[in-house]
Amino acid sequence: GVVDKGVDFAQYFCTYAFLYHQKEMLCDRVRMDAYYNAIFKNKHHFQGKTVLDVGTGSGILAIWSAQAGARKVYAVEATKMSEHARTLVKANNLQNVVEVIEGSMEEVVLPEKVDVIISEWMGYFLLRESMFDSVICARDRWLKPTGIMYPSHARIWVAPIRSGLVDKKENDYEEAMDDWRSFVNETKNYYGVDMSVLTKPFEEEQNKYYLQTSIWNNLHPHQVIGTAAVVKEIDCLTASVDDIRQFTSTFFSSVTFESRLCGFGGWFDVHFRGRVENPAQQEIELTTAPSIDNGTHWGQQVFLLQPSVQVSEGTDLNISFSMSRSKDYHRLMVVEFGCDIRHSSGTMLPPIKKSFYIE
Amino acid sequence: GVVDKGVDFAQYFCTYAFLYHQKEMLCDRVRMDAYYNAIFKNKHHFQGKTVLDVGTGSGILAIWSAQAGARKVYAVEATKMSEHARTLVKANNLQNVVEVIEGSMEEVVLPEKVDVIISEWMGYFLLRESMFDSVICARDRWLKPTGIMYPSHARIWVAPIRSGLVDKKENDYEEAMDDWRSFVNETKNYYGVDMSVLTKPFEEEQNKYYLQTSIWNNLHPHQVIGTAAVVKEIDCLTASVDDIRQFTSTFFSSVTFESRLCGFGGWFDVHFRGRVENPAQQEIELTTAPSIDNGTHWGQQVFLLQPSVQVSEGTDLNISFSMSRSKDYHRLMVVEFGCDIRHSSGTMLPPIKKSFYIE
Ligand SMILES: Nc1ncnc2c1ncn2[C@@H]1O[C@H](CSCC[C@H](N)C(=O)O)[C@@H](O)[C@H]1O
Ligand SMILES: Nc1ncnc2c1ncn2[C@@H]1O[C@H](CSCC[C@H](N)C(=O)O)[C@@H](O)[C@H]1O
Repeated sequence: GVVDKGVDFAQYFCTYAFLYHQKEMLCDRVRMDAYYNAIFKNKHHFQGKTVLDVGTGSGILAIWSAQAGARKVYAVEATKMSEHARTLVKANNLQNVVEVIEGSMEEVVLPEKVDVIISEWMGYFLLRESMFDSVICARDRWLKPTGIMYPSHARIWVAPIRSGLVDKKENDYEEAMDDWRSFVNETKNYYGVDMSVLTKPFEEEQNKYYLQTSIWNNLHPHQVIGTAAVVKEIDCLTASVDDIRQFTSTFFSSVTFESRLCGFGGWFDVHFRGRVENPAQQEIELTTAPSIDNGTHWGQQVFLLQPSVQVSEGTDLNISFSMSRSKDYHRLMVVEFGCDIRHSSGTMLPPIKKSFYIE
Repeated sequence: GVVDKGVDFAQYFCTYAFLYHQKEMLCDRVRMDAYYNAIFKNKHHFQGKTVLDVGTGSGILAIWSAQAGARKVYAVEATKMSEHARTLVKANNLQNVVEVIEGSMEEVVLPEKVDVIISEWMGYFLLRESMFDSVICARDRWLKPTGIMYPSHARIWVAPIRSGLVDKKENDYEEAMDDWRSFVNETKNYYGVDMSVLTKPFEEEQNKYYLQTSIWNNLHPHQVIGTAAVVKEIDCLTASVDDIRQFTSTFFSSVTFESRLCGFGGWFDVHFRGRVENPAQQEIELTTAPSIDNGTHWGQQVFLLQPSVQVSEGTDLNISFSMSRSKDYHRLMVVEFGCDIRHSSGTMLPPIKKSFYIE
């Protein structure tokens, strides 16, 4: 529904107003290299062109666009970070090219349409934060019919994984419940109030927190135990908010070695390809897949199954996946996994179905 | 200024909607014993009376009031925790006495005035969260002229302390700045953008975070190196919002043993005394002073001075203290300490003056 601007600032934008947080993104080498190469290996998209940077933060992408030869760059930022961006633009002598505009993209008015929209809008598991909505809004209002999106494409991936987190979270949950039970006893004995009626709601609360909420994690590639699949492809030039608000996907995954199936890992990649009539000279990919040396600040999202299930090479997983937005706050997501497991012997296990919150 | 209700819910009330958070308070034995004894050792204030519990949370104080013999208890709670409170009241068979009302105290309408207002409104360093404003509002609208406040009095304390945190925070800050400087170098070398102009704002941001923000801590009594003083006394029956919105105090503190003066510790206590015409049969105190065995979830707030100063027995500290509310958010505070140090030899050190945020 309707977004309360004050609440959105309090809950979402607040962190972006800190240099500390911008620095975390600026220190992500994989992210930085991808955007840097996307721009500087495709200067033909920038030379003499007008560019819009949606959510400029520190201003880095706007500055690179200008350095690559843009005629004019509009750099829009909702938070007070815009002031630092303006300072940085000046210090790098680009104030005649880059115009920093403080305001939310949905409300800003530009004097002209642009040739390129560049933005680093990707949240955890791609869509958390729902910032792509603002990019779509910018595109529909300000991109020329011949314009180019940077990045141009995005994909969401899912794969079966093993993970010790399944035991840890189960333990944490059990401990919290043990603790609750002694608390109920003591409150009855010392203070004469029987709290046992709240055991069920407390259990639900803790269960949601420990077991039904996805977890940020840096997965090792060896933790991926079966084939990964794309559950969503986005063409940034044509996607609508309806396309990403809610979607489902089903796919097969084949287990590649004997292991425990502890749940699923989720990540994304984006590509910079220009557009068909005006392609990139060099296509660039930014992936947040499990990696030993090229981890990103996005890590992966882990969705745990309890109990874990023993599987082996050749076990077939028939997986259904759906994502939609949280009822309470549009920048958070709800995800549902279904999984049918067929061992290579032909035995089928009882189907699994579980919902998760991405908080 | 004006409070945006949505923002206030997003930033402040949200945590109280979790049983997990209510449990933390319900597990604080010092807190629980104080309220329990205040009620059950002063049943004459409750028997046959009407009571208002401002911010009932789980409903515990309302239930105790009913168990102590109240005729009627209005239990007001702004968050969905009200539903759990209602369940708990029923499970303890008090639904004929306790009426749980979901709503913010400022807006709720009661059918009658009450004899007693009970509330656990104290935040870190007493006034953080500014919840006492809501108690004042309740009192002015709903307390009978002869009514009683539970608690009836509150005090804020300050004392000079020593603390290893002074070194730790200084280190953390230095590390963050070292890290920033390599970041600036790398960004220049690898990505062609000079970020050095942001060094000063980053330094200010980190300085505020590490060195100018008070810290939650459980102080050991031995860390208090001089006499403690009351900087604010509140009579809950008569205090106005203006009395607590902004105040100053100056006092002397005498150092009691040779040590490093690393800053100041702050805490509070409250008393349950009834009122002059209708006093408590047994006065109860709830203190959050540094203690070995009787720590509370409030701990103490620590305000660090850099650099620390060597002091000895007989060193006199002339301290000025002021507290006001944060410009940006009325539930947070800003505190200023001034300190003149006179060694027993008569030598005066250069005066210290420093502001802190309570976040
Ligand atoms: N609707 C909107 N309007 C303006 N800015 C927005 C926005 N939604 C998100 N933002 C801003 O977009 C930024 C995303 S983080 C990326 C920052 C920068 N482009 C970089 O790549 O380093 C944040 O600073 C956030 O405040
Ligand atoms: N203005 C207001 N109106 C209604 N409830 C409020 C309020 N300000 C704070 N509260 C509620 O007051 C509670 C304070 S915590 C204390 C809870 C309970 N009385 C106990 O002693 O355990 C929180 O649950 C908070 O949501």
